[in-house]
This record gives sequence, C-alpha cells and structure tokens, in this order.
Amino acid sequence: MADACIALLSDFGSQDAYAGVMKGVIAKRAPGIQLIDITHEIRPGDIRQAAFRLWQARPYFPEKTVFLAVVDPGVGTSRKPVAIRGEGFFCVGPDNGIFTYMLEGRGPAATVQIRIDEPGSNTFHGRDVFATAAALLAAGAELERLGPPVEGLLSLAWPRLSISKRRDAIIGEMMFADRFGNMVTSIGALTRIGDLLRLRPWTPGCEPCEFPASKARVVMGHGQRLPVRQTFADVPVGKALAYVGSDSLLEIGVNQGSAADAFGLLTGAEISLTWG
Amino acid sequence: MADACIALLSDFGSQDAYAGVMKGVIAKRAPGIQLIDITHEIRPGDIRQAAFRLWQARPYFPEKTVFLAVVDPGVGTSRKPVAIRGEGFFCVGPDNGIFTYMLEGRGPAATVQIRIDEPGSNTFHGRDVFATAAALLAAGAELERLGPPVEGLLSLAWPRLSISKRRDAIIGEMMFADRFGNMVTSIGALTRIGDLLRLRPWTPGCEPCEFPASKARVVMGHGQRLPVRQTFADVPVGKALAYVGSDSLLEIGVNQGSAADAFGLLTGAEISLTWG
Amino acid sequence: MADACIALLSDFGSQDAYAGVMKGVIAKRAPGIQLIDITHEIRPGDIRQAAFRLWQARPYFPEKTVFLAVVDPGVGTSRKPVAIRGEGFFCVGPDNGIFTYMLEGRGPAATVQIRIDEPGSNTFHGRDVFATAAALLAAGAELERLGPPVEGLLSLAWPRLSISKRRDAIIGEMMFADRFGNMVTSIGALTRIGDLLRLRPWTPGCEPCEFPASKARVVMGHGQRLPVRQTFADVPVGKALAYVGSDSLLEIGVNQGSAADAFGLLTGAEISLTWG
Repeated sequence: MADACIALLSDFGSQDAYAGVMKGVIAKRAPGIQLIDITHEIRPGDIRQAAFRLWQARPYFPEKTVFLAVVDPGVGTSRKPVAIRGEGFFCVGPDNGIFTYMLEGRGPAATVQIRIDEPGSNTFHGRDVFATAAALLAAGAELERLGPPVEGLLSLAWPRLSISKRRDAIIGEMMFADRFGNMVTSIGALTRIGDLLRLRPWTPGCEPCEFPASKARVVMGHGQRLPVRQTFADVPVGKALAYVGSDSLLEIGVNQGSAADAFGLLTGAEISLTWG
Repeated sequence: MADACIALLSDFGSQDAYAGVMKGVIAKRAPGIQLIDITHEIRPGDIRQAAFRLWQARPYFPEKTVFLAVVDPGVGTSRKPVAIRGEGFFCVGPDNGIFTYMLEGRGPAATVQIRIDEPGSNTFHGRDVFATAAALLAAGAELERLGPPVEGLLSLAWPRLSISKRRDAIIGEMMFADRFGNMVTSIGALTRIGDLLRLRPWTPGCEPCEFPASKARVVMGHGQRLPVRQTFADVPVGKALAYVGSDSLLEIGVNQGSAADAFGLLTGAEISLTWG
Repeated sequence: MADACIALLSDFGSQDAYAGVMKGVIAKRAPGIQLIDITHEIRPGDIRQAAFRLWQARPYFPEKTVFLAVVDPGVGTSRKPVAIRGEGFFCVGPDNGIFTYMLEGRGPAATVQIRIDEPGSNTFHGRDVFATAAALLAAGAELERLGPPVEGLLSLAWPRLSISKRRDAIIGEMMFADRFGNMVTSIGALTRIGDLLRLRPWTPGCEPCEFPASKARVVMGHGQRLPVRQTFADVPVGKALAYVGSDSLLEIGVNQGSAADAFGLLTGAEISLTWG
C-alpha cells in the first residue's frame, strides 16, 4: 500500500472538521495510506475552479493516485456519486462536471455509480460515500465493486478559446488569480520551441498554431498592451508582463507585484494574444 | 505502527510554525506515524468550539486513534496536562474541559496527569508536553507510563437543550456556523424513523422523544418560522430550511446561500423545534 | 524510508494547488515518505519571515529531515537552486538567504547547485526543481548526485541585537506577531537559571551576558514599560507582560489578549531589555 496515494480537493475550508473527518474515514479503511491535500479552499460550490485545480494537479501525482474531489452543491439531490478509472488514475466524487478538464484527452474511462450500503446523511456525502469509495480503490478494490457502470458523465463548459479568422490572434478569457496576484488565462497550452510559441489548445475544438514569440503581445479588455516575456524579472519591478506559466497557460503578472490588484480581477473578461 | 493514527486539533492557525513543530516532535518519537489534522483554526482560546469539533470527529477515526487537542489559554498555570484512555481511543491535552463532549457516554475512562521530565517552555506545552505524550501512546506505550492517575476531569457546560413542559417543543440554542453559512444547533441527535423524528439528546439530562416529521417546524428568535426538510434542494434557491445535519443535529441552512449571512449568527440564541 | 521526513515551508498559501503539486512530485519519487507542513502561509516573498520560521522549527524535527523551503521571488533569474547538507539535516531551496538563520553555528555544511535535467517552467521551481531534489535526498541519494559543489551562500542580515555600552541593557527589535497577537523580539536566546536570565545571542557578534531576572524590565518605543514574568497568568487579564517565549526569545504578550492589537505591530521597532 505504500505506493498508493489519495489526493484530496474540496471546498470545505480549514475551520471545520469536514476534511479531517473524511481522512479519518479513509484511515479506517486504508490504514497508513498517503493522503495529500491539493486544496480545501475552493470557493464554496465553484465547480469550475475545482475542475481547473484538478487539471493542474493531475500530471504531477503518482500512477494509481485516487483523486477524491468534493465540491458538491447538489448533495442530497439526484446527482450521481461516481467513481472513474482514467489512464493510470482514479476519480471519486459527484457527477457534476468536476472531472471534465482532467479527463480530457485521456482516452476511454470506465465509470460506475457508487453504491455504499451504509446509512448516511443527506448533506455530507464526502464522509458517507466518497471517502469510503476512495479508500477502497486506494486499497486495491476493483472499480466495478463500487457499483454498476454508468455512461455519460455531466460535462462542464470549457473556458473560451478561439483563433481569429485572420489567424493573427488567439482570443481567450481571464480565469483565476493565484495568491501572488498572477492571473491565469485560458490561452494555452503554450510551449516555446526556439523562437516560436506553439499553442496546443487544452480546449476541445480549437486548432494548434505556431507564431513568432518576438512579435507576440497581449491585449486586455481596456486596450492595455503587455509584452510576452520569459519570467517576471524580464520587466522592471512594478511592471506588468504576460508569460507562459507553469501549466503552459498564458498568465498575466507584475514583477514583485500583483496583477490582480493592478488590473482588477475579472474572471471571464476577454484577452487576446496577437502577433499581427 | 502503520495502523496507529494521531488526530490533531488546535487554535494555532496555519501562519505560524506551531502545528508543524508539534508534528516534528511526534515524527522524532514515532517515525512514519499517520498524522491527520482535524483543524488548527479553532478560534483562539475557544474551548467549547474545540470540544464540539472533537465530538464531531471522534466516531469517524480508527480504533486506537490518539486525539491531540491543544486549545490551552491556561498554559503555564496550574491546569493539569492529561492523557486519557477512552473506549477505543486516547486523548491528550490540557484539563480544561476540551474532552467533555467526546467522552460523554463512553464508559469509564482512565486518566493520568502527564509528567514529562524534560526542560520545556511555559507557553508551548503543545510542543514540550502534549506532542511527546501523544507520540508515546501512538507508539504503543501504556497510559500509566505517562504519569500518575488523576480523578475528576474539569467539565464544560453543555449547550442548552430541554423539552417544553407541554412536550410539544424542544428548546435549544444556536452553536456554530460552518464555512457554508449553515448553522448547527444544539438540538439533536435527531434521527428519522419513517415519518417520525426521534430525538436522542446528546446533552446529559434531557429525555428522548419522538414526534411527527411532517408537523415539525423551527422557530427562531425573532419569530421566523422554517420548515424541516431532508436537504437543501427541498426548498427553492435562496430559501431557508431546517434539516437534520450530518452530525444528527438540527441545522439551519439556505439553499445555495448562507444562513449565517441571512439571519446573522448569534451563538447562544434560542431556537425551538415544535410540532404542536 | 519510514524514518525519513520532508518538512515543507512556502509562501504558496492554501487556495492554490501549488503545495499539493509539490507533494505529488515528491510522492512519485519517494512513495510513502512522511510529509510535514511547517507552513505555507509565509507572506508572499518574505524571505526573512521564512528564515525565522525555519530557525524555529529545525530543532524539533528528526535527524535526516529534508527542509524544502520555497519562498522564491527571484524564480527564473540567475539565483542558484541549492541543496545543503547540514549537521543531521538537509535543506533544499533557492539561494536567497532563506537558510541563513537555521544554519548559523551548525558547523561546516556542504552545498551543491541543483541540476535537474528535465524541462520545466520559469516560474515554478518548487515543482520542477526543488521537490524532485528533496525527494531524492529523502530517498537516500548522496547530496553530490544533485549537482556540482558551490561556495558562499547568500546571507540574510540578522535582526538587530546589541548590548549597551554600560552593559545595563540589551537593545533589539520587534520581529513578528503570531496568531495570538504575541510579538516575538530579536532579544534572545534567553534562558533562566535560577534567579538569573542568561542571554545566549542568536545573532552573530553579540556577546553572552547574565543579569538578575527580578530587576529586568522591557522598554518599548514610546517609553512603555513592561514587567518580565514567567507566563501570561502572572499578570491580570488584559495586562501586558514580557516573557521568555518558547523559542528562548523575549516576547511581548497580553494575558488573554493581543499585544499586536494593543501596541500596534511595528516590525523593526526598537525594544530594550534593561536591568539598570
């Protein structure tokens, strides 16, 4: 069991006992299992932010990791509790779109509707359903033991991303600011090949494209223009820049400052990367 | 040792190194032991909130779990450091009432006053006394090795809970709001048996009773009345309800909203569950 | 591996996935390793606060602990990523002074510049460089395997500490307030021997001295005088005192209150301990 691992994400915060109680339930079923928190500070009920964080985290966890994700505003309704076998990992949580981004392009996945035959609450399936299911999977249980197969997971809309008709700009949107005030956009996954930037879209339906890094610049909602650089220190202290962030998404930052403070954080606002 | 577990609770917060330092001390004495945080965000010095969180968490942790609880406004005074053997679990912390709720009805418990013969500080017994004691217990030490037996733990007052003389209402109080703005009351433990709600009081001295779920309604301080339902989605978005929460206590919530914001959180305010 | 341990400190906060992702990377390379958070709530970019927290924590962790510290405002610049072998522990992080305080007086240390031959980001070396290096060390790799030796780590300035010419006062500065509003000063490490207080300076270049505890008093910036006592309860509720804190530094507190609120927190403000 030493090499199994459960990665936890929720909107439970850290003041209540909820996240700890889920871990207690897991420790009962899978003693000594490694438990790693991705975050429990998802904004209450924000499934899209949760889906994005799971997408960010997945590539960096070991094979066979069980991702236990509980952002569950529909708890107690008919939304299905599900367990999913992906390519080298498992997911456990509500069927509300939370796994959409992390599963994209991961090939065929098997999904079951979790059936736990124990009395539980109507409001805390994280403890009464999902933690137990995750522990069973981490301890080696077959996915099919958890319940009957289901088809057709609920899908979350993807953040906006398109290429302009003249093919001289990529149009995306602002997504989230991190603790440092860096704003992640939906433009990516961008990689640098010599003097070129290559867009490998993470949004389905948008084509790849390549363009010269030196000509790239970012245009924000009010017409502000930002240079595209490698890292913060490539602009003076206090100045803004765009750069390819650690998730291969375009980010907006300020050297030793906060872009979220400087520009206001407008989730959903349009942003363009242009080289025309 | 793989199946031992220490569950930690404190008011140390997450900005300081205090909680991490306690874990370092434990890792020295009991390498590889599983450490699970219940929360470190108890309001500074709020023993009652701590006692409630421990009560919530205890049933969900494995046998032999050591609950290490450090909310200790009396550190450095004559209050006793204690270790307790309960029914299938251990407690380590200050004798200030913090274990009152979790020990209720758990049968006879043995208690010792911890004697650690190492020089330490006057202000951080979490590190210098309690972490070491918890690690020793988790590693298999006998309780009696930690110090001499003591009688008569300090007891915390229980939240208010009584049945009206006419036996048509249960009178309790507001306790705590969680991150989602749901307010937990002292009315419980409530369970549903078909069309009946059954009160199994968690407060000593209050008798059990049964009443029809369909007639139940909640009356709050300013005369507001709330229906009792199964889960949030049983009322329209933005509407308030009462429901039996995941700890079998009556809770007040708002579907996709915050009851704490809607009604103001008044810890200690009276609330009635009536069916007359 | 059961007795190896990685202690993590960063300014990543708990809302983003960054700290969890570092742990995922570690779990890939060193499955089942014990991971202990010191804190991830260092003020963004505050290297001095990070250095102080590491100094506080180090003595309480097991032999061979790997301290992984990522407060890295210079990420992506020419600042060196380093791994250090201290006396019974390892450090991994940026060469920006973050390890200055914890290494003081620990004897000769070997340092290498980390070379990780994997493509990574310009902005998240915690994930792409430091987590991998820490996992390798915790799993038993030789320090020298991580890269070529380097000399001359960048050094952080020490907090102010001196003894007055007349040798009747120690002059220091306010450093940090903790969650409880207790303010740690740079005056220490102080220990009590009978009726004497002994200063064993943690700041290089300041001599030890001894003086009568009963005559000691603290003078703050606006001339306020505080008694030096053993613990909070030695003064009435709401009153301020100075005491020797759990790190053997002089602290300013208020019995059941917050000194930070009472006096305003002025990091860097002068404070004297006098016995003349």
